[in-house]
Parts: sequence; structure tokens; C-alpha cells
Amino acid sequence: MRRFVIGSARNLIESSRQKYQFERSILSSSYRFLSSSPAADSPSSSSSSSTMAHLVSLSTINPKVIECEYAVRGEIVTLAQKLQEEIQTKPDAHPFEEILYCNIGNPQSLGQQPITFFREVLALCDHPAILDKSETQGLFSADSIERAWQILDQIPGRATGAYSHSQGIKGLRDTIAAGIEVRDGFPADPNDIFLTDGASPAVHMMMQLLIRSEKDGILCPIPQYPLYSASIALHGGTLVPYYLDEATGWGLEVSELKKQLETSRSKGITVRALVVINPGNPTGQVLAEENQKAIVEFCKQEGLVLLADEVYQENVYVPEKKFHSFKKVSRSMGYGEKDIALVGDESYESYSAERDGILSSLARRAKTLEDAFNKLEGVTCNKAEGAMYLFPRIDLPEKAIKAAEAAKKAPDAYYCQRLLAATGIVLVPGSGFGQVPGTWHFRCTILPQEEKIPAIVTRLTDFHKSFMDEFRG
Amino acid sequence: MRRFVIGSARNLIESSRQKYQFERSILSSSYRFLSSSPAADSPSSSSSSSTMAHLVSLSTINPKVIECEYAVRGEIVTLAQKLQEEIQTKPDAHPFEEILYCNIGNPQSLGQQPITFFREVLALCDHPAILDKSETQGLFSADSIERAWQILDQIPGRATGAYSHSQGIKGLRDTIAAGIEVRDGFPADPNDIFLTDGASPAVHMMMQLLIRSEKDGILCPIPQYPLYSASIALHGGTLVPYYLDEATGWGLEVSELKKQLETSRSKGITVRALVVINPGNPTGQVLAEENQKAIVEFCKQEGLVLLADEVYQENVYVPEKKFHSFKKVSRSMGYGEKDIALVGDESYESYSAERDGILSSLARRAKTLEDAFNKLEGVTCNKAEGAMYLFPRIDLPEKAIKAAEAAKKAPDAYYCQRLLAATGIVLVPGSGFGQVPGTWHFRCTILPQEEKIPAIVTRLTDFHKSFMDEFRG
Repeated sequence: MRRFVIGSARNLIESSRQKYQFERSILSSSYRFLSSSPAADSPSSSSSSSTMAHLVSLSTINPKVIECEYAVRGEIVTLAQKLQEEIQTKPDAHPFEEILYCNIGNPQSLGQQPITFFREVLALCDHPAILDKSETQGLFSADSIERAWQILDQIPGRATGAYSHSQGIKGLRDTIAAGIEVRDGFPADPNDIFLTDGASPAVHMMMQLLIRSEKDGILCPIPQYPLYSASIALHGGTLVPYYLDEATGWGLEVSELKKQLETSRSKGITVRALVVINPGNPTGQVLAEENQKAIVEFCKQEGLVLLADEVYQENVYVPEKKFHSFKKVSRSMGYGEKDIALVGDESYESYSAERDGILSSLARRAKTLEDAFNKLEGVTCNKAEGAMYLFPRIDLPEKAIKAAEAAKKAPDAYYCQRLLAATGIVLVPGSGFGQVPGTWHFRCTILPQEEKIPAIVTRLTDFHKSFMDEFRG
Repeated sequence: MRRFVIGSARNLIESSRQKYQFERSILSSSYRFLSSSPAADSPSSSSSSSTMAHLVSLSTINPKVIECEYAVRGEIVTLAQKLQEEIQTKPDAHPFEEILYCNIGNPQSLGQQPITFFREVLALCDHPAILDKSETQGLFSADSIERAWQILDQIPGRATGAYSHSQGIKGLRDTIAAGIEVRDGFPADPNDIFLTDGASPAVHMMMQLLIRSEKDGILCPIPQYPLYSASIALHGGTLVPYYLDEATGWGLEVSELKKQLETSRSKGITVRALVVINPGNPTGQVLAEENQKAIVEFCKQEGLVLLADEVYQENVYVPEKKFHSFKKVSRSMGYGEKDIALVGDESYESYSAERDGILSSLARRAKTLEDAFNKLEGVTCNKAEGAMYLFPRIDLPEKAIKAAEAAKKAPDAYYCQRLLAATGIVLVPGSGFGQVPGTWHFRCTILPQEEKIPAIVTRLTDFHKSFMDEFRG
């Protein structure tokens, strides 16, 4: 979130420059937050506009902010929003009726319903005054009410609106530690757990802690989720890339890690940490346990902090792969993975049905899209074993690459922009995640509602065919 | 929040060093977040513990993190938590039955009930599935239900759990802009508004944007809320202090701003922004409009970004003072301040009663505590005109200052620690906020429940008397 905001601030500065010649400041007063630099638009400011021009401009802000890129929210998305507004005011402005956002892993904005049990508990914790009213029994399940009481009992003063302990409410960390113990079969200490509002603050915290200067490096997969490149840039460190092997289904080879580590050390970089995203984003692969062991061993030998991003641990779609936490693997004693106990409670049946419904639908969507991509001329797509993404490779005709150059775009960005303009489908160019030089990809989420997938496939296939016809030799 | 977490991480590193000789890493696997560096406690890690020792330690982390201090969550609070645990296991362990947290502006954790209307709307937005059920009519007010529909209609896909626009949901920014227009009587553009989860991310965002190196300075009031000193330290800039004038009720003099600006410029510092907290934290003063105009003029002349922290705009306790937003002042056209319209709706009566009840009780508590402080030997306390704090000055006897030196504490920290141990009352030493060298203060919130205030006054008065007796000449 914070990253996106920085990006927006930068865009706003950029557009302000064009629109107002720097005479407006970038932050406006809001109800409980920072207010603007009011000098900029007071009646008498004209006399000092030349001073103000130097206040906040692309040439005077922190250059690290300028280096920050966030592909999933970049140029293509801005164009998509513009098209959406045009469709709203003039429904036949474009050859499609709606914009289909396949760019961002944001299930509920694409119509996926939230899990009822979670929302019941959340609502009751937000407004505990209704907990012991009789109408509440009719509206909420008994175990949601019970769970809300349990959670509230763990919060000092039952105050859900209050500042909590810096690491998160102790009682919740106890519960999470117990869940991790059940999952991994090894002890977990609640005092080692830091709760954050999303993954981004946790990643930023670690980068802030580890990076002292541009001489500190972080090993990151390519392709990677841009949160990593953006946070490393923002904290002034060096991204040390290692390439995932597309030929083996985006495999992670320790020999590649060693090679990149040595190369960067020879340049005077102190590599401090290794980022592993499992299941992968944007690549969707699930690591094998043997592979994970080798990675752990590598970190041990080289003295690296292992930053394991395991956000998609429940999103695994192929029966031959299982998620193993790096914590469990590192403790080297078999499996024993279980969900946090809910069995037997009133909501368990609906909870399981909702969750399994979502996951099996995602698996079907992944397969349909994967098959469709693999049927396209010049496109190859690895299986989505987990996470919520496909990352197909596209071999573009020479003429298309030339056309992209003329338009001053990366070839995959050019393809995505043409696709959006022709079909309303929003993808993210592979160049936003990194890729082996000379190869081109795009990321497509598997999140649009299942009934929309066939239309997406048709539109995409038709577009691709005409695009290739246009540029073929 | 993020700042607190960084502080905790540092503390954890520190305690890990003592407890485990660096053999544990600082982050543990949690359900959806970063997992630990697992190498540290796997069975075979002993062979490499010397390598691991260099991974994450006080000497190898980013030194800017070490410079970060956050007084309201510091040493005194750690001691208070220890005492609280001792009381829980052994109720007569100390000469008091409970810990009274006057250190942090956290009303609901001290028993202040949340505003019903807000919580009803929040619960309904979290769990919209109940919106059109008949039982909901009996549990929630009609205008809460109506408001929840309005808000949900502004959220794309009605998806409260989804990622939003980077600046916050557009429809909500429209509403906020309309509220600011009504408050200030000047236009407000929703595209200039950035919503953040608390004030801290907004402050960090601005510091990140403005600070390029230690040569960039930010003018901050002394005393200040430590969010500012901490975020400037973390982003590697220089805090340029200006002193609030205690003799004139913590007045903000433009001559002082000029003096400090020139001093820092002569040292090669580029001052980029001025922080003003109004109503003040920890000082509780409310700025006069004429004073604000002079501040705006100063920023205009010197080319400074004005960072106006107006979080406490509804917390004003004296009839002769009014809150004026810097935005309004800067647009220089009279008043016209109003709340966002709620009049006539079903919840308005209870909303007003709850809000007015809270504010008038806070005003009474502020007055009672202020009077009590002013009766103490060697203590003078300015009026709390706004915000939620008193910041009394205390002249400590020479012997007490010597005793503090012997205990390696700042004299005000020593006083607060002795007070806590004797009475269970938690204050924050003035040294955590900054003060004129050679003066000593502490910050006391006005938030403990009103019925507890007399006991706090009695305990504090008794302690103070015996403390002064102990150290008097």
C-alpha cells in the first residue's frame, strides 16, 4: 500500500508539473492527516511562485523514490482507468463493454465473495455492543459469536480501535503460533511473530533493517514481484538477481544462486539476504522439498537471511505438489501439516465449502487459461501449480519489436497496451517483473469470475491472431 | 505503527543477543507474512553459528534504525508491563492494584467507549451480507444501514476486503473533500487527498519524499511528538529544532523559526519543511489564527513545505480558542467551519451525545489534572487548550538530579520511573519529546476514566511530596 502511495505521489508531482507549473503542492489537507503546503495556492502566492517551484519537484525529491517502479499499478493500469471512464460516459466508445482486470491479485474486487465466517467475526469484533443482543443470534452463527468473544477477551480493554502492542496483540500471536506449530510440527514462539497490515510493511521493515548502503545486496528471483525491487530501491540497496529457469517450470537452481552471489561479491556487494517466493509470484511454481533443503543449506553456508514469502500457501492446484514452509523444512523433520482447527463448529461446513469452492474454481480457471495460452502462436505457458498467476512467454515477431521501439515501449508492454485497447483485458508486461534479457512475458491473474473466462479466452485468441497477422514477416 | 515495530525488532535483537548469543533470527514464520531465517535453529546449525552471528546484530543492521527512539513506547512502558504481569500473578506485589497508563493517547484502551454510529457502519461494511436481512433493522439504526449502503456503492465491486486505489477509494475521497470544503469554505480536490492507515505512514511518506541526505533538514517543534524525530532519523535527514515558548503557553514564535533556519543554513543544511502540530502534542496548545498567518507567510518566503499535523482538530477545550486549519488560514478568507452534515438522521442525537460527552469529560479531566499539577511543589503546568495531553514542567532538587545521574537516567526519566514503581502511574519523560536544555517535564494524557482521576491526583500528590522530601536540600 505504502509503495503504491509513493508511486502516486510521484505521478501527481509529474502531472502537477504539467498542469500547474509546480504551483500546487502535492498533499492536500484531509480530515485527520497531513494538510497541504498551503502557501502554494493562497491568493498572494504569485509573488513567490519561483521559490515554490523548487519545493517539491521531480528534481528535488528523494531520487530513490523516482527509482521505485510498481508494474502492477503502472502505465497500463492508468490507461485502463481512462478507458473505463470513457465506457461509462459513452458505452460504445470501444469495441468492448467492460475492462477485465487480469493485472492484480485482488480477488474480491473481481467478484469473489469473502468467506462468511471471517466477515461475521470481523463485524462482531468491530461492534461488540451487539454481541449479547438476541437479534444477533439470528444474524450470526453461534461459533462466530463465540470466536468474537474469544478474540475480544485477548484484547486489553476489549478495545479493537486502540493502539495495540507493537508486534500485534499478544493473544492473537499466541493463536497464530499455535497454528504454525500444528502446521509445521515444530515449536513456534509468539514473541518471534510480528503482525503487519499486509506483506508490504513486513518486507519494508526487513529491507530497512538489512540495507545500510548501496553496497548491501538482496538476492531476488527474476521474475519477481515488484514489491521487492521497489523496496530495495527505496531503501537504497542493490538488487542481486537470480534467474528462475523457465525450461524446468520456473525452477530455482542453487547453482544459479551461487553464481550470482559470487558475481556480486566480486563487485564489492555484501549480499545480506535471499528472497524466495513460494508459491511463486508471478510464476506460480511450487518448490519441491528437496529444493527447499538445498536453499536452506545455501543460506546457512553463505550467512544469508532467508526471506520466505509464503503468502500463497493455501493456493496449490496440482495434486503432486504440496506446500512446505521454509520453517518446517529448515527444522528437517517430515510433514504433519494441518489447518487451524475449526472442525465440528457450526460454521465449519460453510467455511470449508466456501474455501474449497474458491480453490477448485481457481484451479479450473488456471487450467483453462494455461491451455488457451499454449494454443496461441509463439506462446508457451508453464503450469500454475500455485499462487494466482500465469506468466506465459511470448515470442514476438521482429516487426512487432520494431513497432514497439518506434513507440518507445518494451515489446511486451506494447503487446499489452494493444491488447487492452482492442479487448479491455488488462495484463502486466513481464518487463515489470524482470525476465531473461531478450525474452518477453506477461502476467495474467486467474481471478476473473469463472463465467467470464471463456470470453476472455476468445477475445485474447482473436486479438493475438490479428496481432501476429499484422506483424508476421 | 511501523515505527513501533522497528523499535521492537531492535529490542528483540538486543534481547536475543543476551539470551541466545545471536543464534536465533529475528523474524519467525507467521501465517501470511515473512517467515524466519530458518537456518538459525535447525539441528545442524551449530557448525555455522559463527557465520550466523554476523547476520542480524546491532552492529550489522542499518544504523539509522538504531538512532530511532520512540519515547511513548520506551523503557518506562517496558517496566510498566513487567509490573502489570507481577500484579496479575501476585496482587499484593506492589503498593497499588493496577497500572494507570497516562503515557499514550489511546482512549479506548483506557475504557472510552467508541462512537456507536461509526462502529455500526464499520460492522455493516465489513459484512454486507446482513444488510438486507430483517434482524438487521432491529440491531442497527436506519441511518447506519443507509450510510453503509452509500459507502459500499462507492467501492468498486462493493469489495471492502480488496486492494483499493493507491490514494484511497475515490468515493470516500470525494466525501472527505466535501467535508473539508464545508469546514474551510474553500474548494478541496479529492485528487489531492491521500488516505493512509494512521498519521504515521503519511509522515513517513513525506519524509521519504523530502529527505535526500543528512544535508536536508526538517524544522520540528521542541517538544515534539517522537514520530517526527524517529521518522527523520530513519530516513537519514537532520532535525532542525525550534523551541515552543513555555512562558507564553507553548507559543510558536516566527522569530524563533527564523533564528533556527539561519543557524542551520549556516551549517550547510537545506531546510525543506516545517512541522507544526496544532493542537499541540505533547503541549496541548491551540494556535491563534494571526500566528498561523505569520507561519504561512514564513513558509512562503523561505520556500518550505508546511507539514500541518491537525489530528486533534476536534479536541479543543477552551471557549476562547478555535481550531483553524492551515489550509483555510492560507486561503485567507474568514471562517465558516462546520462538521460534516449528520443533522436530522436517527443516529445524530446519540452521535452528538456520545461525542459531546467524551469531549466535555476530557475538558473536565484536563482541568482537574492541570490544577493538581500546579499545586505540586516546583511544578508549573500550562492549560491544555486542545489535544489530549498536559506537559507540566518540574524543577527537580539538585540531589534528585544527582541521584538520576548515579542511576544513569535523565532526571525526568528518573522521576517517572520512581513514580511508576511507587504508584503504578505511567507518564512519559519530557526528554523523549525534547525540551529546553536544563528544563524537565513529563507528558500526562487526560485519558484515564474520569472516576479514576481523583485517585490519580491523590497518588501523584502523595508521591511527589515524599519524593521532594527525600531529595530536598
